[in-house]
Amino acid sequence: MKTAILTVGTEILFGQIVNTNAAFLSQQLNNLGYDVMYHYTVGDNPGRLAELIHLAFRDCDLILTTGGLGPTQDDLTKETIAKAMGDVVVENPACMKYLKENYERAGRKMTPNNLKQAYMPSRATVLPNDAGTAPGFALEQDGKIIIAMPGPPREMQRMFELQVKPLLQKKQDSVIYYRMLRMFGIGESSLETVLLPLIDGQTDPTLATYAKEGECSLRIASKRATEEEARAAVDEMTEKVRSLVGDYIYSYDDEDLIDVVGRLLLEKKITIACAESCTGGLFAGALTDTSGISEVFGHGYVTYSCEAKETELGVKPETIETYGVVSPQVAEEMAAGLAAKTGAKLCISVTGLAGPDGGSAEKPVGLAYIGVSYEGRLYAVKSYYRNVSRKWNRHYTLLRMLFEVYRLISPEKPA
Amino acid sequence: MKTAILTVGTEILFGQIVNTNAAFLSQQLNNLGYDVMYHYTVGDNPGRLAELIHLAFRDCDLILTTGGLGPTQDDLTKETIAKAMGDVVVENPACMKYLKENYERAGRKMTPNNLKQAYMPSRATVLPNDAGTAPGFALEQDGKIIIAMPGPPREMQRMFELQVKPLLQKKQDSVIYYRMLRMFGIGESSLETVLLPLIDGQTDPTLATYAKEGECSLRIASKRATEEEARAAVDEMTEKVRSLVGDYIYSYDDEDLIDVVGRLLLEKKITIACAESCTGGLFAGALTDTSGISEVFGHGYVTYSCEAKETELGVKPETIETYGVVSPQVAEEMAAGLAAKTGAKLCISVTGLAGPDGGSAEKPVGLAYIGVSYEGRLYAVKSYYRNVSRKWNRHYTLLRMLFEVYRLISPEKPA
Repeated sequence: MKTAILTVGTEILFGQIVNTNAAFLSQQLNNLGYDVMYHYTVGDNPGRLAELIHLAFRDCDLILTTGGLGPTQDDLTKETIAKAMGDVVVENPACMKYLKENYERAGRKMTPNNLKQAYMPSRATVLPNDAGTAPGFALEQDGKIIIAMPGPPREMQRMFELQVKPLLQKKQDSVIYYRMLRMFGIGESSLETVLLPLIDGQTDPTLATYAKEGECSLRIASKRATEEEARAAVDEMTEKVRSLVGDYIYSYDDEDLIDVVGRLLLEKKITIACAESCTGGLFAGALTDTSGISEVFGHGYVTYSCEAKETELGVKPETIETYGVVSPQVAEEMAAGLAAKTGAKLCISVTGLAGPDGGSAEKPVGLAYIGVSYEGRLYAVKSYYRNVSRKWNRHYTLLRMLFEVYRLISPEKPA
Repeated sequence: MKTAILTVGTEILFGQIVNTNAAFLSQQLNNLGYDVMYHYTVGDNPGRLAELIHLAFRDCDLILTTGGLGPTQDDLTKETIAKAMGDVVVENPACMKYLKENYERAGRKMTPNNLKQAYMPSRATVLPNDAGTAPGFALEQDGKIIIAMPGPPREMQRMFELQVKPLLQKKQDSVIYYRMLRMFGIGESSLETVLLPLIDGQTDPTLATYAKEGECSLRIASKRATEEEARAAVDEMTEKVRSLVGDYIYSYDDEDLIDVVGRLLLEKKITIACAESCTGGLFAGALTDTSGISEVFGHGYVTYSCEAKETELGVKPETIETYGVVSPQVAEEMAAGLAAKTGAKLCISVTGLAGPDGGSAEKPVGLAYIGVSYEGRLYAVKSYYRNVSRKWNRHYTLLRMLFEVYRLISPEKPA
């Protein structure tokens, strides 16, 4: 069923809050097999709101709204929707009773404007709000449905889960199943080019690529009569994709790279230590996002100066002198020193040029060398994509380090 | 000028990404004195996109779009806009040259679909993209303006700042001058309550508060005939605000806390070292965001385990035994050990409970102690706001550490 999400609130148009309601509802609706065609945001203005409702119903059969159900003067969603659906707002005895009880229970005094929340379109199905005071409602007319929910995300999400989702599930005759693959080391256009034979002429499952900061995602989705059929179609397509770009895929389940790495380190009980120069703590910072990581991670070093690399990790001044501080040799000595000092099974180091200054033709800004000591091997890999900004270069180097760890310990394939 | 923001992207309708572009642009446009009337989001569908452009131009004179400018088959924004504005898309020689150079410089092979990015509406003013490959453009017709920018937030924000903002500033007949104050340690509703006497009945300058993760911003804006008048009004109001909440303000110029701290450390040549437990490298990672910080920062330690705190920093096992690892005593010993080891002028440490598990009534999740050694003083401060999530708790602790450094070295007031 074609759907529009209509969020009401001047604070969104001022940019004071980010519209997470639209994202939440979109995800939920897609999972339920509804096609979200539009997001609209409008202020608390009845004329513009009414116009958007009419517009949305030209293409869509379902509108979900959030916001404007509160007790203040500028909350006009309810009246506007009633009018647009050829209905009127009347006092709803059940709502009034619930509202009064709610205020009594909370020991709060009900101001006259709060009574507004007990008025409902006369034909509406009321949706109780058990996380706040403003109830929502569903209203149908000539096969068109509008469902109005409150604006605060916590109230809206709870109402969606408990009231709206069951209502929408009943209306569906097909099911969408999808899978999000996450990749590193391949750009969006290269990915699309490689997958072109699978994308061309394909109607179901559908494939869609997404670019993220230094990463790529691929969504494989199928809409079928049952979840089993949809899942089987997605699984089959996933295998085809894996055979083409499997080396780049680090998650088949929309996990962040750091989450995959943290989980694997814990599952396999691989102790890890790190020594960072250009990333300056970002790797350790990311690693410690994982709850419980202290089981395998005890020591991290930010050896930002040459002196720190020498005194903390035993990098030889001659090595820095001969090859430069940004070199595979220094990265290796950092990793070797780290292993000797901490005894961690996997030791990873990095030295690079974050920028914006200090680059040369031979060693451009953005270049980094990652040193690894693991299972008796000591090596360094080069990391370079392009020089964007100091922040981006550091983020990319962090991802490259995480991906190196992933390649080493992943069950998917040998290093 | 009445404005609509039109974000294009199926990934937004799928709920895969939150529409931060609309929020960013809304804030920026409001700052420039533009009235944002609508947000629209639509998928990569030329028919629906064209319809929304026509609809938006019924009410608005300016449309800002993001997304759909990339190299893939489903990126159709450019063609659709051209058609809606009575123009056609042609190869743009300057874009083609720039694109080719860009790929050569990066040493990447240009796939045929990348050529698409060198096509532009024939009457368009091209807006260079110096953070990616897809350029944007501005196109005018009969007093209506449409400005198209790429979807990735980093690219879009940079293009807005460098290309779009100056263009929009020129179109305004009155001048808006504003100042964004940044604060730490005061909540949005407390801030509003304290400032109520200044907000009530005030039409110009206007004051608007914004809540950020653990921080607060205050926008003071004035719209006058000349910039001088607007600036004077804002300056006067700024002084009133400073007299009420000056202790919380760390920037009068919308700077991030880390940028202020990094700048001050460099200006004053104060050497700094850090030892982190619960933040696990986030502090060092934030510090090294500042280009050139190596002048004052050489050593950082992530002492995540008790053993690391003992061997690296000389924390006494008895101290951990007696007071617990999350205690002011351990924080102080960490800072003292750090000072002895590195000789840095300002040594800062942290030990805390990031969560989600491990809290108690006495030491709740979210609690941290920050140890400081500076100018002969050694002390610890408690950091606790509330327990939200592991990620949030770590971020809040990081900000609290940075704010402590700010308080110590700020020229605004003595510690």
